[in-house]
Amino acid sequence: MIPTTIDLGKGQPSLGLLPTAALRTAGERFLAQHPASWLQYGDDRGEAPFLDALAGFLTRRYAVPVHASQLMTTAGNSQALDLCCALFTRPGDTILVEEPTYFLALDIFRDHGLRVVGVPIDDDGMQTDALHEAVARYRPALLYTIPSFQNPTGVTLSAARREQLLAICAAHDVLVIADEVYQLLDFGAPPPPSLATYASGARVLSLGSFSKICAPGLRLGWVHGAPELLERIMRSGLVQSGGGLNPFTSGVMHTLITLGLADGVLDELKTVFAERSRALCGALREQLPFARFVAPRGGYFVWVTQPGISANVLLPFAREAGVAFHAGPRFVHGDRFDDALRLSFAHYDSEQLREGVQRLARATLHYPDNPRA
Amino acid sequence: MIPTTIDLGKGQPSLGLLPTAALRTAGERFLAQHPASWLQYGDDRGEAPFLDALAGFLTRRYAVPVHASQLMTTAGNSQALDLCCALFTRPGDTILVEEPTYFLALDIFRDHGLRVVGVPIDDDGMQTDALHEAVARYRPALLYTIPSFQNPTGVTLSAARREQLLAICAAHDVLVIADEVYQLLDFGAPPPPSLATYASGARVLSLGSFSKICAPGLRLGWVHGAPELLERIMRSGLVQSGGGLNPFTSGVMHTLITLGLADGVLDELKTVFAERSRALCGALREQLPFARFVAPRGGYFVWVTQPGISANVLLPFAREAGVAFHAGPRFVHGDRFDDALRLSFAHYDSEQLREGVQRLARATLHYPDNPRA
Repeated sequence: MIPTTIDLGKGQPSLGLLPTAALRTAGERFLAQHPASWLQYGDDRGEAPFLDALAGFLTRRYAVPVHASQLMTTAGNSQALDLCCALFTRPGDTILVEEPTYFLALDIFRDHGLRVVGVPIDDDGMQTDALHEAVARYRPALLYTIPSFQNPTGVTLSAARREQLLAICAAHDVLVIADEVYQLLDFGAPPPPSLATYASGARVLSLGSFSKICAPGLRLGWVHGAPELLERIMRSGLVQSGGGLNPFTSGVMHTLITLGLADGVLDELKTVFAERSRALCGALREQLPFARFVAPRGGYFVWVTQPGISANVLLPFAREAGVAFHAGPRFVHGDRFDDALRLSFAHYDSEQLREGVQRLARATLHYPDNPRA
Repeated sequence: MIPTTIDLGKGQPSLGLLPTAALRTAGERFLAQHPASWLQYGDDRGEAPFLDALAGFLTRRYAVPVHASQLMTTAGNSQALDLCCALFTRPGDTILVEEPTYFLALDIFRDHGLRVVGVPIDDDGMQTDALHEAVARYRPALLYTIPSFQNPTGVTLSAARREQLLAICAAHDVLVIADEVYQLLDFGAPPPPSLATYASGARVLSLGSFSKICAPGLRLGWVHGAPELLERIMRSGLVQSGGGLNPFTSGVMHTLITLGLADGVLDELKTVFAERSRALCGALREQLPFARFVAPRGGYFVWVTQPGISANVLLPFAREAGVAFHAGPRFVHGDRFDDALRLSFAHYDSEQLREGVQRLARATLHYPDNPRA
């Protein structure tokens, strides 16, 4: 079935990919134990059995050891990022981000009164010489980075640059908030290790989530970092008052992991997203031969640049043709990247993606004074 | 079974009161529907079927109409209060609270850099003449109040004072954050209506939660207020980025409410807490005849004053005797109420409560220079 509008802006899995059967199995098993202890306020850090299971899952999937003492339960990456801003910044502080970056993180930074400065990226991720200059010049409260399969560009920070980034932040005592929500979603070749697994001397908090690798509606994630940094988060009023951040759901996920179902769900998503990514990129090459993009090796997104074509001007023509996307300028604190657009391959199947690109190509033909027409 | 230490500070239901059977029934029913739509990011406001069910539940339990358009899903009252501070205050702002007030809310206010000013209370709740003076003098960003069965004192704001409080806040355009987590937990005589149900012209956000009336570990609550105030919360970066605040758990609760089980759980808690409150108050009258307290008509707490006895000095003697409590000074931004202590009757059964008070009486005998000994 081909929808009337194919919204390639949607950075979320399609309904059919949500693991309702696995969650039913895990949920029923969990509830059958009459799990009173998971219904109480819960430990500040999160429930120990869940954190143990999560440490095992991450150790297996990262192929790098992760200890439960380095983990804390969150209610998803947005909640964790919001809390980190509250605890580690004050309004008026400057923070650094990749340019372009995840547009809705910018809304969180705005709510906390933060001044956002972008650091340019290329095919190897954030440019560390530019980072070095920006750190010296702005003395930022923190650096927010999406190292692997970045949103929106899909690029991955190289291993060498990871070392450089961490060395720069260690030298200037800049807190690194690594949004690693796509870290486990490679299409065969894993990215360099999570920033939290380097012994760098930098203060790093890696935010992970089950939103992209299981189901967003669970609102369940984790912070991975040095125990003393986690301690500050646990001492927050929010955690002290509310208790652990999502005990009940973490109980369901604990069962999902220990039954071995979480691995199956993730493997299935990786296979499907790899196939969808290939379909989208193939259609782009065929239908939009002048568009520039780097085929992603993981994650959710393709970043497409069409020199001479404004994404914001194109968008109404695209909607008219039955397709939508997020225009480049949404991803910066300014109006750059007007010739770029972010396409997600997570929400539609391959046939729908091909149709979406066909519609995009039709819309581009109607673009006023199309430099390619 | 009598525990080695009876911690009457614990403001949480005992494990045996957590509704594991009802949640199993509701959870299995929910999961059997393969609820993909509840696993997606979800509506900013919360899922419509849940909010409709919640509006019906509140209308029935409040005996005052509540519309779904006045409701938004939260991840519990602590999360909602934290988010309100982020959105409606700036560090350095002054806010007003009852004196004494919920001690962990003070931690949330501290995290947001707020200056806290207390307004005195008596047996009818916050003194509105003092509120009037404080509002004029401090021009607060908001007023945080627990109108019904207050934490820690158990007192309830009278109907007349509710009108006065709202009129004062309307006249000075002060946002009212009403923490109404105990509103539905009366022991037979309901308190005056929720502050959100008055047509006062004041800006009111009433925070409600399933923590005290079902299970804390669900991390599920709601905000009840004017749609334009909810709109600001929905536009926050946290909600825009993370989606609705707890879709999966709200799906379980939706089933719990629509199966009629939420009413049963609440009714059972009210019966048990009323009985436990009677047991605790009876033991206090018998064992600590010089202690002053007002027997609560709902909620979780009894506030006990022992003139001439410092709660902080008493506490180590109490621990020695196998009982604990929260000392009065924890509940103020200062060191007043040193002769007061908060006892919760939610976490122990009647026999354990009586034993706890007996131990407290023994500890009081060991108090140095006990004015009663």
